[in-house]
Amino acid sequence: MIKKPTVVHNQIIADTSVFSIERVSLRFTNGAEVDYERLRGRDGGAVMIIPLLDVDTVLLIREYAAGVDRYELGFPKGLMEEGESAESAADREIKEEIGHGSRRLTLLKTLSVAPGYTNFETHIVLAEDLYPKRIPGDEPEPIEVVPWRVDDFTSLVEQEDFLEARSIAALYLLQHYMDKKCSPKKTL
Amino acid sequence: MIKKPTVVHNQIIADTSVFSIERVSLRFTNGAEVDYERLRGRDGGAVMIIPLLDVDTVLLIREYAAGVDRYELGFPKGLMEEGESAESAADREIKEEIGHGSRRLTLLKTLSVAPGYTNFETHIVLAEDLYPKRIPGDEPEPIEVVPWRVDDFTSLVEQEDFLEARSIAALYLLQHYMDKKCSPKKTL
Repeated sequence: MIKKPTVVHNQIIADTSVFSIERVSLRFTNGAEVDYERLRGRDGGAVMIIPLLDVDTVLLIREYAAGVDRYELGFPKGLMEEGESAESAADREIKEEIGHGSRRLTLLKTLSVAPGYTNFETHIVLAEDLYPKRIPGDEPEPIEVVPWRVDDFTSLVEQEDFLEARSIAALYLLQHYMDKKCSPKKTL
Repeated sequence: MIKKPTVVHNQIIADTSVFSIERVSLRFTNGAEVDYERLRGRDGGAVMIIPLLDVDTVLLIREYAAGVDRYELGFPKGLMEEGESAESAADREIKEEIGHGSRRLTLLKTLSVAPGYTNFETHIVLAEDLYPKRIPGDEPEPIEVVPWRVDDFTSLVEQEDFLEARSIAALYLLQHYMDKKCSPKKTL
């Protein structure tokens, strides 16, 4: 176990309705002192969901992303609400965004996103045994749902608007999960 | 081509040495108006590098990540400096972090990271034909270099400290690149 640096000083230097920015001075075990700024989300983290409509098909969405000011193709995602587990947040988000609930939710992995700058985490959840169910969400406009064949991820990763790190990581995690499930002996 | 929302109002509401936070009101084509906060990095973006030491081995690093306050295993990465291309930034970063330069740099894809909140982008660069070369970086302590076998990514993705979305996306992009290179007919 590597010994972590200790906090010499920290201070909140900006505080908005979404973000909080902390300036922190850290002393490493070799004596080096470094100042960092780190971002604290107000919320508990996010979920990204891989909705498996059937054994051949995932459901993607194309929606406007304000940070990059363009429409992006990717897996459904959203912030967790207070008291929600990753699985319950995933089930709610797909009901809001793609009009399906899931009877089988599996947390594949919890990812960090820019860990040098923020503690923000995203839980990648596989949603299987889907059934039609829509609940109202907070989306400003209807979301386009885009089915994609599981055997055609090669062309997916080459799409110009499919470029979010978490969505591409989700492809890897899905493949890893399926490989283990289908050939358990191979991985033990 | 989907028509993007228009900006009704925007304002910088926080401004630190690393981050700038903008509040923006957007009007969607259906008339809906929504307020967002979005984060602007001061810098041009980042590179993450997949250093291929030989055909069987990638080089990872384990370093302290201030945002999550822990050590994480992942691919080398860093911010681009002014005037640098993704390839030149990648070459500099691996000289600083793993003590190797590269004679063959290939940009695999440029990824968004939390595109709902920020315009921050990361270029994933494959570095081949490595040679020993170290230049001083700005790291507060020596970085641990961790070789990993390409045929053992299954155990890598299960490591408790290998959890960054961009690093896992990089595994997928490497595999995609190698698949195309080794069986070009398959993808056409």
